[in-house]
Amino acid sequence: MVAHNAIYAQSGGVTAVINATASGVIQTARQHTTKIHNVLAAKNGVVGVLREELIDTSRESDRAIEQLLHVPGGAFGSCRFKLQNTDPKDPVVNRLFEVFKAHDVRYFFYNGGGDSQDTLHKITRLGEQFSYPIQCIGIPKTVDNDLAITDCSPGFGSVAKYIAVSTKEAALDVQSMCDTSTKVFILEVMGRHSGWIAAAGGLAGSGPEEPPHIILFPEVIFEAKKFAEAVKQIVNTYGFCVVVASEGIRLSNGQFVAESSSKDAFGHTQLGGVGATLADSIQRDLGYKVHYAIADYLQRAAGHLVSKVDQEQAFNVGKSAVELAVQGARDVMVVIKRLSNNPYRWSIDTADVSQIANIEKTLPSEYIRDDGYGITEEAREYLLPLVSGESFPVYRDGLPDYQRLKLDFVARKLPEFQV
Amino acid sequence: MVAHNAIYAQSGGVTAVINATASGVIQTARQHTTKIHNVLAAKNGVVGVLREELIDTSRESDRAIEQLLHVPGGAFGSCRFKLQNTDPKDPVVNRLFEVFKAHDVRYFFYNGGGDSQDTLHKITRLGEQFSYPIQCIGIPKTVDNDLAITDCSPGFGSVAKYIAVSTKEAALDVQSMCDTSTKVFILEVMGRHSGWIAAAGGLAGSGPEEPPHIILFPEVIFEAKKFAEAVKQIVNTYGFCVVVASEGIRLSNGQFVAESSSKDAFGHTQLGGVGATLADSIQRDLGYKVHYAIADYLQRAAGHLVSKVDQEQAFNVGKSAVELAVQGARDVMVVIKRLSNNPYRWSIDTADVSQIANIEKTLPSEYIRDDGYGITEEAREYLLPLVSGESFPVYRDGLPDYQRLKLDFVARKLPEFQV
Repeated sequence: MVAHNAIYAQSGGVTAVINATASGVIQTARQHTTKIHNVLAAKNGVVGVLREELIDTSRESDRAIEQLLHVPGGAFGSCRFKLQNTDPKDPVVNRLFEVFKAHDVRYFFYNGGGDSQDTLHKITRLGEQFSYPIQCIGIPKTVDNDLAITDCSPGFGSVAKYIAVSTKEAALDVQSMCDTSTKVFILEVMGRHSGWIAAAGGLAGSGPEEPPHIILFPEVIFEAKKFAEAVKQIVNTYGFCVVVASEGIRLSNGQFVAESSSKDAFGHTQLGGVGATLADSIQRDLGYKVHYAIADYLQRAAGHLVSKVDQEQAFNVGKSAVELAVQGARDVMVVIKRLSNNPYRWSIDTADVSQIANIEKTLPSEYIRDDGYGITEEAREYLLPLVSGESFPVYRDGLPDYQRLKLDFVARKLPEFQV
Repeated sequence: MVAHNAIYAQSGGVTAVINATASGVIQTARQHTTKIHNVLAAKNGVVGVLREELIDTSRESDRAIEQLLHVPGGAFGSCRFKLQNTDPKDPVVNRLFEVFKAHDVRYFFYNGGGDSQDTLHKITRLGEQFSYPIQCIGIPKTVDNDLAITDCSPGFGSVAKYIAVSTKEAALDVQSMCDTSTKVFILEVMGRHSGWIAAAGGLAGSGPEEPPHIILFPEVIFEAKKFAEAVKQIVNTYGFCVVVASEGIRLSNGQFVAESSSKDAFGHTQLGGVGATLADSIQRDLGYKVHYAIADYLQRAAGHLVSKVDQEQAFNVGKSAVELAVQGARDVMVVIKRLSNNPYRWSIDTADVSQIANIEKTLPSEYIRDDGYGITEEAREYLLPLVSGESFPVYRDGLPDYQRLKLDFVARKLPEFQV
């Protein structure tokens, strides 16, 4: 049997554990050298494939690949790029397969969210049209936790932990100052269309009487007057009010509370400013001193506070993708299946990529409290295992010692190509 | 010898380690029962003294007081309250001493920043006028690190660590996405008049070629055009640009870059919005996709990421304050003296409160790089020891298990008093 090369590519927004997946892919491939000769990691995702910028992972030591487990961000670079045209005559499509052929690539591991799985599925079908034997395996990743079929997405658990811990800590701060200073604190969190991350803030308290007192989900229409009244009542009762607000909350007319004009490369509206908008309205209408924090990238890059469960799952989806590939799988995405809540048990399963692509899984209504401002016990049971356990990086001089890779390219074999 | 009571009060913005100081005060007082009968912790700082809301710390177990070491925020509550009138006939002044007398308080430990030390000094002088033997000992605390005489202020080291780690992590995220997505990331940090916290962001990289590429200090006049050119050049060179921006940066006319109309209880302008302002201008003038985070309270409440050195210093300033008091000291503030950088050694010293009150120590010019956008080696030598070492809290169910106290009041002896 002749071994062929694999390409591993990171796609879309990165996470604190996407490199744990990379580590799982590369470590496992090194155990299957009869089938996988080398893992070529695309620089900046599929864009790097098109540019023939392929990182030779065989030049990275076993130890360096092991240590990738703890490094946040995308060690090989990621991209926001969607395969628009799937016409076999399209130059981009052709280039992709030229690169595959030139580097004897028969396995393509694509580590991304819904958009990426869509790209993956297209490549599989193009492979069939070109009669080129490429095994595409999707590996889930998204902090938003909005991928269908998989019980959860690697990356989410660590953001969830970060948001829950940050909410709990900021609440202690605000509570101690509320008598003469800030009475309302707002934490703006990610979540364009789904409230999974916001929901995780709910783990900071054990019920409605503990902060966060209000969670604002994209799944619940935002009503300014009802919100102001709730804040007022909470401040009157507890002396302070902690709000976790998803960036994606909308008014009844569908407009984002914080509408921004800029759009990302997928055409999604780029959000921001919910914290400021809510703070202004509270200060104006209720007269309370308000502070707000915007976690932004800090929440998804926090390698210092990853969930151990999330890190293990991220590693294992990478490992399983390779194992499936060497067993002949293609056009599937690795998914996580929950077996039980308490004790939490999970296993790896697979799903057809076509079932996952471009479907956004929002927070189920039974996870949202009747008043729309909190999570239910059912949500808590779902979320709690995902933030469990700690896996601290090694520190040096007071900071996490995130190792960098060599990132040497394999030699080019094709002419340049502009993306 | 008859033992008397002590009051311990937290003042001003809280920190991740102010409770370590409380722990040091109470644990040490328990070792000096011949002189200190009980530590009464004022609820919400000096406001709680005036309201006669005094927490009986003798009802908290040794273990609970030990565990305070890890709890962020102010366990007994803090306040923003300045003793305005020091006329001995003023009702507030009189009330203060009535409470001292009613509860046999002869020691007053005030844990705060410059404003608080000013209050403390006034109380000492009033004690002399009233011929009431009150020993006032100031205990430093401020995340801003702007207190005079002390080499550093407990609370700063942990914020510094949080900002350095967060900058490093977010930079890894941005770097991996910059090819097709966000090119500029801004982290807005605290620091109204001094750039100590912003400077700490500089520890994320080892020199100008590593992120953060630009640090904006309040000590350096902000020039929009120069800044835009610097951002552009950095993006052209490295592909991305990470900016750490102090909330207190100003234009050449003295105006804050993000002017806000709201003021806090001390009359200080409450800032916020530098991140958004800078992001808007970069996006508009340079066309780059920009993200920004506002760390706000998360940075000073991060009990999960305290600096071990900071925590030890916070504990020891509390411990020393009590030891000094039982030796007869009064009207002094405990300070930290640096003995050497490498290895870092420090000791406890004292300073006259009057020398410290209301003086703001800004970043020395030799700590700021010539171009105004980074820190020097000298700054690095000063900062590095302060972020050293980790002291993780105990986790339960994925979150830090921050123990709560009973917080029982001692019985009231006086009529009510409105503050």
